[in-house]
Amino acid sequence: MEARTVKIRVPGTSANLGAGFDTLGIACSCYNELELTLYKDNRLEIEVTGEGAGDIPTDERNIVWRSIVKVLKRLGCNKEFLGARIKMHNMVPLSRGLGSSATAIVGGIKAANEALGAPLTGQDLLKIATDIEGHPDNVAPALFGGMTISTVKNGQPETFRFMPRLNFKMVVAVPDFYLPTKAAREVLPDKISRSDAIFNIGSTAILIAALMKGSKRFIYNAFEDKMHQPYRAELIPGMFDVFQAAKEAGAMGAFLSGAGPCLIAFTDKNEARVGKAMIEAFARHDVKAEYMVLSVDEEGAKVIG
Amino acid sequence: MEARTVKIRVPGTSANLGAGFDTLGIACSCYNELELTLYKDNRLEIEVTGEGAGDIPTDERNIVWRSIVKVLKRLGCNKEFLGARIKMHNMVPLSRGLGSSATAIVGGIKAANEALGAPLTGQDLLKIATDIEGHPDNVAPALFGGMTISTVKNGQPETFRFMPRLNFKMVVAVPDFYLPTKAAREVLPDKISRSDAIFNIGSTAILIAALMKGSKRFIYNAFEDKMHQPYRAELIPGMFDVFQAAKEAGAMGAFLSGAGPCLIAFTDKNEARVGKAMIEAFARHDVKAEYMVLSVDEEGAKVIG
Repeated sequence: MEARTVKIRVPGTSANLGAGFDTLGIACSCYNELELTLYKDNRLEIEVTGEGAGDIPTDERNIVWRSIVKVLKRLGCNKEFLGARIKMHNMVPLSRGLGSSATAIVGGIKAANEALGAPLTGQDLLKIATDIEGHPDNVAPALFGGMTISTVKNGQPETFRFMPRLNFKMVVAVPDFYLPTKAAREVLPDKISRSDAIFNIGSTAILIAALMKGSKRFIYNAFEDKMHQPYRAELIPGMFDVFQAAKEAGAMGAFLSGAGPCLIAFTDKNEARVGKAMIEAFARHDVKAEYMVLSVDEEGAKVIG
Repeated sequence: MEARTVKIRVPGTSANLGAGFDTLGIACSCYNELELTLYKDNRLEIEVTGEGAGDIPTDERNIVWRSIVKVLKRLGCNKEFLGARIKMHNMVPLSRGLGSSATAIVGGIKAANEALGAPLTGQDLLKIATDIEGHPDNVAPALFGGMTISTVKNGQPETFRFMPRLNFKMVVAVPDFYLPTKAAREVLPDKISRSDAIFNIGSTAILIAALMKGSKRFIYNAFEDKMHQPYRAELIPGMFDVFQAAKEAGAMGAFLSGAGPCLIAFTDKNEARVGKAMIEAFARHDVKAEYMVLSVDEEGAKVIG
């Protein structure tokens, strides 16, 4: 089998969107790029620029390489291609709740699949990526773009993908500290009250409906959540104040991005004002932060060379 | 103030639709009719025909009358109108999970409002009906028709209403026993696992998305639920077998209607075959049942005379 050199672009993602815990995801216009050349010998040359340069392992522990190997094994050519040259240029911040690991995984499997003539379907790639990441809520939007609803039933991930019919930007407040997902998981209780679950079912259903129909007036309460944000607030000083500041500056609503610490506001006006208000609210809690203004990425992982 | 005699038609409803516990509702083409004449003296003449005739109280305990009184009080004319003639003709089966009490409440408040020139908005009526019923998931579709997503936040009910873009009929298997909602509530645990809540959030989100986009292939697993049906199965002999029989006969999926005991299958073909299969599955568990084939009601409570 012959392999061609491919260049791939993969969006960062935000999961949960408030109430849609472990279910909803959205692709953001902030990208990692990846160039892959498969080698028939066992040289492994990994170069990282941008976010994570110097920190991300460049040997066989590298998550992009490990994801590539999964595809090679699936296609039965892991004995034929033993090495690779991987050039990564990362713009998605690491360990901040923007799905950087999902972006790396999707980059690896998409690149390997394209390098070999794209024999695998999107559903195949979703399954492989979910098996590596452990859950589909970030890998699905990284793969397909737009907004995604992901479930796992009988071990099979299923994703419904759509584009919101509402115009908005995402103002992302990025604090200057890392929050490992493991730590953010440990604060969550195993059991919750039935009423809290009902609350989240209702918020999630309203959010989906409002985004599909473009009904702005239903968005305002649709990010409210009782399953994870109240517990994770202790790990992110000022979180609810930042949400409130964003709303007062004109945003429709705000939520914790993935397991945090990034916070995201949806707004259809005053992006800079919303961003500054969020940064200032963080500052009042002694958290240094920056903000980015992102759009919804429509395309997901795509070949750019 | 003058009042006119009005005739109202209100659909029966089904709540939950599997995973959307205490949140989703759908209006069905099975109706109660109600004619109201307000009296300035305190005569109360209530006549019931059809379902519940002989069982439904015809004095001041009558739920339709009590709902009318709420509207009269709200409009400050409960001292002016002291009695009424109410003629009810009911086709919605009682205490079977088809929202008969919500239908009665909505009939009463809609009739009273129309009799007095319709000063109250739909949102006003939703609030009054929710206060009487205790939750909005049945009163919302009875009022607005179609499919509804209802939440209560800070004591305020909010309903998003839409028409499914998928063509289907509802095959309703009606067992010959009553199941009081209270008994069906008592078997539910107060606490549930986080993973069960996530499961229901995912199913609900997929169901809403699939019905809004008309994506039939996503419907098949979208009624699966871990929050109430598994617990209520003990109260409805053969429930999961009836679901399975409906699917094998060609239905997209099936679920417990409200707190039961009615079971509903969504199908776009073979309605009679699906209905017979459900009845036969019930019979194997010694439950006598009949079936009805209903459509989605688009109009909700409406004036018909």
